[in-house]
Amino acid sequence: MKNTLGHELTVTVFGESHGPAIGCVIDGLPSGVRIDMDRLRHDMDLRRAAGSISTARKEADEVKFLSGVKDGIIEGTPLTLIIENKNVRRKDYDEIKNLARPGHADYTADVRYLGFQDASGGGQFSGRLTAPLTAAGSIVRKMLEDRGILIGTHIRRLHGIEDDPLIEHNIRKTLEELNEKPFAVLSPRVEIMMKSMIEDAAKKKDSVGGILETAVVGMEPGIGEPMFGALESDLSAALFAIPAVKGVEFGEGFGFADLYGSEANDRFTLFHDQVATITNHNGGINGGISNGMTIRFSTCIKPTPSIARPQFTVDFRKMENTSILIKGRHDPAIVHRARVVVESATALVLADALAGAHGRQWLGEKSR
Amino acid sequence: MKNTLGHELTVTVFGESHGPAIGCVIDGLPSGVRIDMDRLRHDMDLRRAAGSISTARKEADEVKFLSGVKDGIIEGTPLTLIIENKNVRRKDYDEIKNLARPGHADYTADVRYLGFQDASGGGQFSGRLTAPLTAAGSIVRKMLEDRGILIGTHIRRLHGIEDDPLIEHNIRKTLEELNEKPFAVLSPRVEIMMKSMIEDAAKKKDSVGGILETAVVGMEPGIGEPMFGALESDLSAALFAIPAVKGVEFGEGFGFADLYGSEANDRFTLFHDQVATITNHNGGINGGISNGMTIRFSTCIKPTPSIARPQFTVDFRKMENTSILIKGRHDPAIVHRARVVVESATALVLADALAGAHGRQWLGEKSR
Amino acid sequence: MKNTLGHELTVTVFGESHGPAIGCVIDGLPSGVRIDMDRLRHDMDLRRAAGSISTARKEADEVKFLSGVKDGIIEGTPLTLIIENKNVRRKDYDEIKNLARPGHADYTADVRYLGFQDASGGGQFSGRLTAPLTAAGSIVRKMLEDRGILIGTHIRRLHGIEDDPLIEHNIRKTLEELNEKPFAVLSPRVEIMMKSMIEDAAKKKDSVGGILETAVVGMEPGIGEPMFGALESDLSAALFAIPAVKGVEFGEGFGFADLYGSEANDRFTLFHDQVATITNHNGGINGGISNGMTIRFSTCIKPTPSIARPQFTVDFRKMENTSILIKGRHDPAIVHRARVVVESATALVLADALAGAHGRQWLGEKSR
Amino acid sequence: MKNTLGHELTVTVFGESHGPAIGCVIDGLPSGVRIDMDRLRHDMDLRRAAGSISTARKEADEVKFLSGVKDGIIEGTPLTLIIENKNVRRKDYDEIKNLARPGHADYTADVRYLGFQDASGGGQFSGRLTAPLTAAGSIVRKMLEDRGILIGTHIRRLHGIEDDPLIEHNIRKTLEELNEKPFAVLSPRVEIMMKSMIEDAAKKKDSVGGILETAVVGMEPGIGEPMFGALESDLSAALFAIPAVKGVEFGEGFGFADLYGSEANDRFTLFHDQVATITNHNGGINGGISNGMTIRFSTCIKPTPSIARPQFTVDFRKMENTSILIKGRHDPAIVHRARVVVESATALVLADALAGAHGRQWLGEKSR
Repeated sequence: MKNTLGHELTVTVFGESHGPAIGCVIDGLPSGVRIDMDRLRHDMDLRRAAGSISTARKEADEVKFLSGVKDGIIEGTPLTLIIENKNVRRKDYDEIKNLARPGHADYTADVRYLGFQDASGGGQFSGRLTAPLTAAGSIVRKMLEDRGILIGTHIRRLHGIEDDPLIEHNIRKTLEELNEKPFAVLSPRVEIMMKSMIEDAAKKKDSVGGILETAVVGMEPGIGEPMFGALESDLSAALFAIPAVKGVEFGEGFGFADLYGSEANDRFTLFHDQVATITNHNGGINGGISNGMTIRFSTCIKPTPSIARPQFTVDFRKMENTSILIKGRHDPAIVHRARVVVESATALVLADALAGAHGRQWLGEKSR
Repeated sequence: MKNTLGHELTVTVFGESHGPAIGCVIDGLPSGVRIDMDRLRHDMDLRRAAGSISTARKEADEVKFLSGVKDGIIEGTPLTLIIENKNVRRKDYDEIKNLARPGHADYTADVRYLGFQDASGGGQFSGRLTAPLTAAGSIVRKMLEDRGILIGTHIRRLHGIEDDPLIEHNIRKTLEELNEKPFAVLSPRVEIMMKSMIEDAAKKKDSVGGILETAVVGMEPGIGEPMFGALESDLSAALFAIPAVKGVEFGEGFGFADLYGSEANDRFTLFHDQVATITNHNGGINGGISNGMTIRFSTCIKPTPSIARPQFTVDFRKMENTSILIKGRHDPAIVHRARVVVESATALVLADALAGAHGRQWLGEKSR
Repeated sequence: MKNTLGHELTVTVFGESHGPAIGCVIDGLPSGVRIDMDRLRHDMDLRRAAGSISTARKEADEVKFLSGVKDGIIEGTPLTLIIENKNVRRKDYDEIKNLARPGHADYTADVRYLGFQDASGGGQFSGRLTAPLTAAGSIVRKMLEDRGILIGTHIRRLHGIEDDPLIEHNIRKTLEELNEKPFAVLSPRVEIMMKSMIEDAAKKKDSVGGILETAVVGMEPGIGEPMFGALESDLSAALFAIPAVKGVEFGEGFGFADLYGSEANDRFTLFHDQVATITNHNGGINGGISNGMTIRFSTCIKPTPSIARPQFTVDFRKMENTSILIKGRHDPAIVHRARVVVESATALVLADALAGAHGRQWLGEKSR
Repeated sequence: MKNTLGHELTVTVFGESHGPAIGCVIDGLPSGVRIDMDRLRHDMDLRRAAGSISTARKEADEVKFLSGVKDGIIEGTPLTLIIENKNVRRKDYDEIKNLARPGHADYTADVRYLGFQDASGGGQFSGRLTAPLTAAGSIVRKMLEDRGILIGTHIRRLHGIEDDPLIEHNIRKTLEELNEKPFAVLSPRVEIMMKSMIEDAAKKKDSVGGILETAVVGMEPGIGEPMFGALESDLSAALFAIPAVKGVEFGEGFGFADLYGSEANDRFTLFHDQVATITNHNGGINGGISNGMTIRFSTCIKPTPSIARPQFTVDFRKMENTSILIKGRHDPAIVHRARVVVESATALVLADALAGAHGRQWLGEKSR
């Protein structure tokens, strides 16, 4: 299905930026798990991420449940949640509705929908649609955590500034610490540098991109399928569905291009009587199936395309060259906000694969 | 579906490395298109790619049609093709069947299938399964070409050696030239260097990896869907299904991490009365939808994990540390062979999206 | 997908009887078609069908669009509609929440969801969920009509009373007339008898069932697929998703059991220079594919399980035998209300098959 | 997917009547279950059902495994099986290839595939395609039996002759006895009458249809989903994929049209400390979900359309009226042969639903 993610545990996201509400339907959840509303609030806030380095649209992003939740507990029936769009400033967009904002989907959506789409705020292509995705992921992620599966992310790189490497030693603890941080970098010094880079970009009326590195610990080996069912296929499909994602690599990723096979191959060894690998160049996945090591991948987020400078573009109605000045709210970077979205998408894909393997109820068994 | 690619035009690959035959079922083809058997043969040969830099298993890879083809013409009914496995040397694998070849799926498949999978030659995880995928892609690619949609690829990088950049100017001609080359690089000098690097790796009983850059010209704008139906999602899912692929990036890809928004945004302009972009950092896709420019992406292929050296590993039956020497056939690189597989996967994804938009018969209209 | 209907044109229904709202997401609609709001209102009212023979819950069933519609015109992006649940009388259900209403899904849902489902009003199993299905079908059906494809239904049988047969001669006109009638029977005499039967059942605090016969004229030949893609498979799957449907038959249906092949075979003949059949025992479908004749099928609707009499049942919490008296609103029959739901499901399935064949935009081409 | 059945446990059938081979791919099987080859042989023979009342094409229908089976044991990887077409008499069809056999898919396939389909023997629409479906079902059915889930069928009606009713008392034993019978009727007297009716039809160069009633005992309650995931939807979609099926009803089916709600409702009661129903009008399914009682449904099989008499029809190439005499092999009835196909389809649907609920390995746990 084109607007649905997953096989056994599915998420159908709906809505558009300036409509009354956005939301999603989650099918395949286990019955009887209490939703951790604080956690959900926390994850939604991470995505909103207002502050000096984010001038995002001010939305409460309050999650309301239309179905599938009774007294705060997941029923197991298809769950529907919505988030109202309150701070809609349609006027900002009306002036520019026929101008293709560079780097945005205005023009492509116009061709795709013959000009009938509601382009305000990016319509169905708005980053705002990641809010219900985040909510769905947050709910599921909590269950994975109760199963010992922990997801964490740091900003590996932001406009040329590299964070310290995420090392495997004590990685669970590192991920826990990252999950406590509103701005997810390992090095406090790098945090200052990155934030200052973002503020600087804002001053220049510009924006910057970056790379998120995500790690998952506690994932059992043997999850995934051959070929089209590869865990990498499912993860990358979910990640590229997030607006602004332009690259995904697993383990060593593009670095494999410069390694010898003898370097790239992760030697197997016994560790505490279990099969393990000494290195983890393959990012915890062999042949599309988890091998029990840390699952590692990086996601590149391009610079926010909305910048506060005039840009050359076309008016695709009048078919003439012109320039555009995008008013309203601008994020000088979305890398830090995208982190929880990436983690939510990851949680959904892993939970789906686990539900397929073990049955739907398995997912909630430790959470009841 | 886990073992099926696509929505309207679907491909279900089947078989295992050392079984009697491998193959696929293609559903959703247009009726009445003659299969270009020479082209099919040519593409199958590109994947086999025997020679001094490839010591691949010798297989004729002859495609036989079980259904869907009458007198060489596509019926439009589900098409089934098979390729017999003839040169099966099961003995090579019997000795090592309980040893996890580093970088391979032996161990993960063993966990996934509780030890019951036929691991010979990698079983269902063998690169050999890309043969039917290539066949399916070749058939569809020809129809895309008749529609003016041309796919081409060069080896952007191989173990540190960079090819000349693939420039947009005259790119259709460049792709045509690349498609004529058995070893797809732009610079003759680089070709010599890369081949020598591969031969050198073979001598060292090692292997090397690389990056393929693929371009598609002639793709109409407006193909793709919001969020989970993003062209990038469908393409990456298909690409990561190819064994050894560990990274996929679109346009500037991971390079976006170091660009400003003002640099990354592709300015729109009118070109021959059509909307175009001056630069193409976004690789022809905005918001998951084609924008009419060249679609560009890179795929990282890790070094062949089978190398002719002893490697430390575990026996996962006896649960003890040991070492393994993989006998038999070794490819010092598979980057050059993976090229046609990547292009076939690309053809299938684009054809699927186009069939969804225009109806199934559209795909074959110019080919009848 | 379990909670989604369709392939290219998909409908995901969500919500539960006593939640804040129910609704659906429709993906794959053409761009640029104005929604006929009067028609939508009319179809929604047919389903509500209040009156002396229906004592249904009083709901306005006003359709609100969350996405995919701009200024009353379909954008082509995923369309989300919701219908608020206003007249919720949860108290009626609280007393009986652990009692299995005979003929209802209370017990099976309780097992399926481990007791965590919101059973009020039947929860996700309520006939109320057919409201968004009806809305989705109504929108699509209008486009089919603009393409000359007309759907109509009569109550073939109600508790032993048979309507006149729906004859092929002038059937389009007959269907148009049926579509004008709030109570869809051909014979005025039978209408009186059926209504009186329903009123009589109400007096007895009982309910009655019936059979709807649906016909579709104007459907082009050649739509459908072999085996699992049979038009009969897709139609029956959609029809059995409607609560209370317990039988579906095409053309002669179960009557085939008593025919000879020589009687059952519809002879082909030329009619106005087109291939036609003289009889239509096969209901317009051969081998799962439309043959251009009227598509005909019947759907059996069981008597409404909620009746105003005490019934023996069990308390599945206390695990003891008891009896139940279902308070609140009772429909002595739902056959007449189910008619528009059956037609809506039919419209969605046919539109999906046509969109797959001709591309998505085809569906709206005559409606713009 | 159009040519694929199922969600978690999927079957993709391929091939055509007069191609080299037909077969299927089964994905989602548990690992480690030995295939009962005698049982498989037995089920394949039931479908072939040669004898005085069947003059079917003589095919050995030997099942060969291309993948997914090692040493007779299911690997758990996608399983591919093929059945060679040996007794192909293409000549019989060449003469009539442009004539629409009444009741067959020749004409509809010709429209659907623009005349390019291989129509010999019905091509992809041939009843022969039920052979791989039967094989897939047989493999899965054995696992269901090891789990205590037993499927059985009798010919409820054949051209007006009714078998004794299939009563619930001791039904497991009755099903076991039916499964031993090559011609599945309860009453020995009726068996003689039905066989004589079939022989009589053969003498008349005609054919007869009938109704199969299928029962499933041992199915746990709580399997199924709301609305589009109703067990009835999945079962009917699979059943209507079988050529010649024109009606499906659950429990009382079309008989519900004449019942009062007070009669139709199955009273719940405690039976051996478990929730049960006293009657079973609803055929073991409430709200699309199994209730633990016997699942019961009937499937109407139309008379074999191929009869040995001249029939009026059209030549759809020359576009002229003509008559046709179908040479070759004719079955005066296929009801008795369809029985194992119906049961196989049933097994696949139930196994798929159970695998979704409990995880894939569950299905094989009692069979290892």
